Amino acid sequence: MAGNSIGRIFRLSTFGESHGAALGGVIDGCPAGLELDLEAVQSELDRRKPGQSAIVTQRKEPDKVRFLSGIFEGRTTGTSIGFIIENTNQKSKDYTHIKDSYRPSHADYVYDQKYGFRDYRGGGRSSARETAVRVVAGAIAKQLLGTMHITAWVSAVGDLELKTTYEALDFSTIEANIVRCPDVEMAQKMEERIREVRKAGDTIGGVVSCVIKNVPVGLGEPVFDKLHASLGSAMLSINAVKGFEYGSGFAGSRMLGSAHNDAYHSDGSTKTNFSGGIQGGISNGMDIYFRVAFKPVATLIQEYETIDKNGNIIQMQGKGRHDPCVVPRAVPIVEAMAALCMMDFSLLARTNRL
Amino acid sequence: MAGNSIGRIFRLSTFGESHGAALGGVIDGCPAGLELDLEAVQSELDRRKPGQSAIVTQRKEPDKVRFLSGIFEGRTTGTSIGFIIENTNQKSKDYTHIKDSYRPSHADYVYDQKYGFRDYRGGGRSSARETAVRVVAGAIAKQLLGTMHITAWVSAVGDLELKTTYEALDFSTIEANIVRCPDVEMAQKMEERIREVRKAGDTIGGVVSCVIKNVPVGLGEPVFDKLHASLGSAMLSINAVKGFEYGSGFAGSRMLGSAHNDAYHSDGSTKTNFSGGIQGGISNGMDIYFRVAFKPVATLIQEYETIDKNGNIIQMQGKGRHDPCVVPRAVPIVEAMAALCMMDFSLLARTNRL
Amino acid sequence: MAGNSIGRIFRLSTFGESHGAALGGVIDGCPAGLELDLEAVQSELDRRKPGQSAIVTQRKEPDKVRFLSGIFEGRTTGTSIGFIIENTNQKSKDYTHIKDSYRPSHADYVYDQKYGFRDYRGGGRSSARETAVRVVAGAIAKQLLGTMHITAWVSAVGDLELKTTYEALDFSTIEANIVRCPDVEMAQKMEERIREVRKAGDTIGGVVSCVIKNVPVGLGEPVFDKLHASLGSAMLSINAVKGFEYGSGFAGSRMLGSAHNDAYHSDGSTKTNFSGGIQGGISNGMDIYFRVAFKPVATLIQEYETIDKNGNIIQMQGKGRHDPCVVPRAVPIVEAMAALCMMDFSLLARTNRL
Amino acid sequence: MAGNSIGRIFRLSTFGESHGAALGGVIDGCPAGLELDLEAVQSELDRRKPGQSAIVTQRKEPDKVRFLSGIFEGRTTGTSIGFIIENTNQKSKDYTHIKDSYRPSHADYVYDQKYGFRDYRGGGRSSARETAVRVVAGAIAKQLLGTMHITAWVSAVGDLELKTTYEALDFSTIEANIVRCPDVEMAQKMEERIREVRKAGDTIGGVVSCVIKNVPVGLGEPVFDKLHASLGSAMLSINAVKGFEYGSGFAGSRMLGSAHNDAYHSDGSTKTNFSGGIQGGISNGMDIYFRVAFKPVATLIQEYETIDKNGNIIQMQGKGRHDPCVVPRAVPIVEAMAALCMMDFSLLARTNRL
Repeated sequence: MAGNSIGRIFRLSTFGESHGAALGGVIDGCPAGLELDLEAVQSELDRRKPGQSAIVTQRKEPDKVRFLSGIFEGRTTGTSIGFIIENTNQKSKDYTHIKDSYRPSHADYVYDQKYGFRDYRGGGRSSARETAVRVVAGAIAKQLLGTMHITAWVSAVGDLELKTTYEALDFSTIEANIVRCPDVEMAQKMEERIREVRKAGDTIGGVVSCVIKNVPVGLGEPVFDKLHASLGSAMLSINAVKGFEYGSGFAGSRMLGSAHNDAYHSDGSTKTNFSGGIQGGISNGMDIYFRVAFKPVATLIQEYETIDKNGNIIQMQGKGRHDPCVVPRAVPIVEAMAALCMMDFSLLARTNRL
Repeated sequence: MAGNSIGRIFRLSTFGESHGAALGGVIDGCPAGLELDLEAVQSELDRRKPGQSAIVTQRKEPDKVRFLSGIFEGRTTGTSIGFIIENTNQKSKDYTHIKDSYRPSHADYVYDQKYGFRDYRGGGRSSARETAVRVVAGAIAKQLLGTMHITAWVSAVGDLELKTTYEALDFSTIEANIVRCPDVEMAQKMEERIREVRKAGDTIGGVVSCVIKNVPVGLGEPVFDKLHASLGSAMLSINAVKGFEYGSGFAGSRMLGSAHNDAYHSDGSTKTNFSGGIQGGISNGMDIYFRVAFKPVATLIQEYETIDKNGNIIQMQGKGRHDPCVVPRAVPIVEAMAALCMMDFSLLARTNRL
Repeated sequence: MAGNSIGRIFRLSTFGESHGAALGGVIDGCPAGLELDLEAVQSELDRRKPGQSAIVTQRKEPDKVRFLSGIFEGRTTGTSIGFIIENTNQKSKDYTHIKDSYRPSHADYVYDQKYGFRDYRGGGRSSARETAVRVVAGAIAKQLLGTMHITAWVSAVGDLELKTTYEALDFSTIEANIVRCPDVEMAQKMEERIREVRKAGDTIGGVVSCVIKNVPVGLGEPVFDKLHASLGSAMLSINAVKGFEYGSGFAGSRMLGSAHNDAYHSDGSTKTNFSGGIQGGISNGMDIYFRVAFKPVATLIQEYETIDKNGNIIQMQGKGRHDPCVVPRAVPIVEAMAALCMMDFSLLARTNRL
Repeated sequence: MAGNSIGRIFRLSTFGESHGAALGGVIDGCPAGLELDLEAVQSELDRRKPGQSAIVTQRKEPDKVRFLSGIFEGRTTGTSIGFIIENTNQKSKDYTHIKDSYRPSHADYVYDQKYGFRDYRGGGRSSARETAVRVVAGAIAKQLLGTMHITAWVSAVGDLELKTTYEALDFSTIEANIVRCPDVEMAQKMEERIREVRKAGDTIGGVVSCVIKNVPVGLGEPVFDKLHASLGSAMLSINAVKGFEYGSGFAGSRMLGSAHNDAYHSDGSTKTNFSGGIQGGISNGMDIYFRVAFKPVATLIQEYETIDKNGNIIQMQGKGRHDPCVVPRAVPIVEAMAALCMMDFSLLARTNRL
């Protein structure tokens, strides 16, 4: 209830702090009989892990997942899947300086106000490290989804925006560069921008785009649990996200209906896809696509002014190991959350008819 | 489970089709002891009702709410509140022409695919008429929220965008014009644009902005149920919504951290508010503000090509009573959904500490 | 959340007070495509309704259900089904004498303590009248369940206990007498006992037994949502219920394992059925059977001593229209709750495997 | 959704098989600020652990709980509490003989039917070993409940029944004997009976009784989530439970209302307590008490006939390490489940009023 679970049928509950003993999760409702590819799971984790390149945080964590239940002789059994990721490289001393102070645009202040105190080490529960658990569960969901295919990529870093429509992109190049942008030239520019920003001890925002292909018609529920409402909630629950749009998105609000309506082919597919693959909250079989806006990371390696918990204005110096830009590592997280969401609706859709 | 409910503690379940006997809802978890102002509830419904002005649908519905339970001698009793809104002006014959065909960018096709058949009259359950029920429940939530104040307004119609920051707007003027835009000049332009579009049998999109004031610190949950994730989901569940952003939003993705961080005053308030009143998913006491993008309505009063349920290409002529632009009537709906969400988190926050 | 809903996939939310305007409910998650037999629904309601015989309450209520949504051209559409039952014969004046006092073993005192005040008319929300709504939803669930057949009957009134095993009973005689006991002689005795008790202004408890036949293997979930745990909770949620046992029940606790184990036939059926059709929380295809204990109704038509809300000891005289024994009318309620539970697990079981 | 979670606000999700790597759980919604007594938690686990006496299973497991999150500097932080209990003494070879066969009255057959295959080692997820996780969470709930005190004990082994009312028992003697019966003489008899049964390779059922003292008025919800319905469901979810009754229970069904009604003292307490501390599903401040019936364990150390998965009749010989009677070890489990339930309702009750 306190919000550490997501999903209705395929349901993930998570735990773990940035500098605690371990992170982990429980997947409830995973159908029995999946031959689980454990390497594929670890490989998704590796796409998210810190220290993977020069433009991400240099915290060194192997992020090895250990499954504790729900799998027998390589297959999911239908019972709950428990797993943990041990924290091995906690440098908690890095954080004693923030124990009694509140970093701007972090959750320090609100945690203290809400709970009376907080685990201040590395942001505690509010650390994006929490998303490693989501990636594990998402990797299992991906395997269950079979041919339904989810691809995310970096489409903007600061004002460097890749405007190419997704149909024109070569997704096979996404993992070929450390930014995860499927345009070599733009990827190069983005990487440079991130390096500059990091050198200045600053950070920068960006956008992750995502497309889901081979979606069956009929996923999503008519009213409050519209498919895009759940996708939106899933994306907005990722650290640092400030906005979500799907299909025509905010640009669609500037259009006329006569231009926006998606005319049908005789097979039920549509000639255009401003709907983004969803009509009335239900998938229509066309590609689902959406964009997720990430703010710049709040931790700067600069001196700044802030307050301590008694309300005194103090000077602080940012330190620690941080991402100058989250979007390259956010790519597998966006995919994971999309997979959790689609898997949940896939199971729910089995109950639609007599 | 099929998505006709929203909320954890303060929970609304809804039912009703556009041309069925009645719409209605059940509110579970409403605290006991509220002296309910029934006129205020009806007044919110009146803000949403069809036929209220020249630029909205001319369907005539009184939309009178009838409460059936949970209220005794004027006060909420703590038991579930059931209520209905009778449909009185169903012109179902207007819809026989769509019985066997699929209107572009409507939910006709996906309903048939998902459920095997559908109540085709006026869009059935996928009609925006369903939101009347949300407005009733939201109006009760507003009264429970006391001094926490929610205000929405139209900030864009097509490419006519009101760029004034919300602090500079005079909210008292919102209800003074039929567009619900708190800038007299812009409201005039917007109204003209909508009239033009309607005359052409076309429709147009727009944006509704919303601000929530006097929010206590500590609402929202750290991980999946971040305050903005729930607000986002609530907004995305409204018919025709294509995007949601809060605080700095998509523009924030183009900023540097050094510019985006919100420095603290000694009392815990912040000098800027790019965070949009939420840090780490939890309210920080500053104003919460967000923007919701609406696509142009799919029903055009034009001739268009589409398919019937056997996949034949056919010519159709749009008719019926429809909104040329939904945003004026969406204003009370956005407020209602925000109120439901804030009320739910307000109750949940009572359980945070020992 | 406040407990006015039941079910995970097939979910009923209810509202309504004994002497309010109407009772009603919303069924969410009903699969599309059921040709609904409305007469069968009303017929279940008639089995529960007051005034149906000389040994039940003489309150006269037609208890006609009015469906408002979710049904189109006679079939369920997959959207939420809303319905109401108007209260037509409220004699609220009968209850002004209890406004400021607390009847023993009623919920008057706890409601005032929990909520600060209460709708005192006829017990308000705590009235067993609330179960009419359950019977409607249960009647729909019964139709969805097809060949899975649920039969309940009165097996005890006070110490008059029908000890015949259910296999030896002729269920076709249940509705042939007003007690709903499938043993003519015992039914006669029970009816006499209830008449005596009523004449004395007293009340008496009893037991309802239930058997579910043609259950597929595999319904129920391994840990907290064991099939019998949900059945038990459903039964214990009925007014006046004090106990639940299934299969061997309390008697099973006195047995040895060597006598209690159910040996298998080669087709997976068992030679005995002490398990009551459920092993490890999951149905095994054998008959499910259970017993539900009801206390004597708390309202006596006698003079008694109690307290008012200021704690003064006062004399009161029971009046109004009440059941001397609830079990005859509880039979359709037990069946309805069993049907809701079985339908919910039937849908959930569709998600067990890849 | 698949039933591995319990609770609304204070919510436990569990995982783990009898012979997998580890068992564990996640507690979501634990209020911040509890100084956690870890020794008290371990001490509850020790009350449940195997090998603790001559009359329980001789499997040797230290059952040490390791907390991974949600606790900082000795206090709960309000974030989710993850924990694991490693399995250290799995003798999985003991179970190869049951790999392809179905033990009578075990869950072997239904698991294979439901999921297509199963982790057959030690019963997999259906093993009562799963309850160790519940005891950990229950121990935390107990500490949160403060002065609300929960006490369970063995009140029957087979037909040896302790008929003394709970008010006359000396609870301090419960832990003084290995049966956990607060009557020295009866405990002696029960122990002897269990030893005899074990010697014969047989098993025997029993009853655990429980009382909850110092309960505030107002816990529990009026309709489906009545306090006793949730307590009942929690108890019925424990392995081997066949029945639940509270207050007057099944005996109450044989009483007259004039004898059963609980007359009030002027302070709102009652002279008798047939209601069992709950009226209309809501606690009334009197002691809550209930009884839970356990069947005899299905595993016999005897030869028996059963079927293999192809339906062949086969001879098998029970082996392994098993409890001849579960009730002594069930005592802390019953207490734990009661604590989880009461804690959940305690938090929910904070939202009852404005």
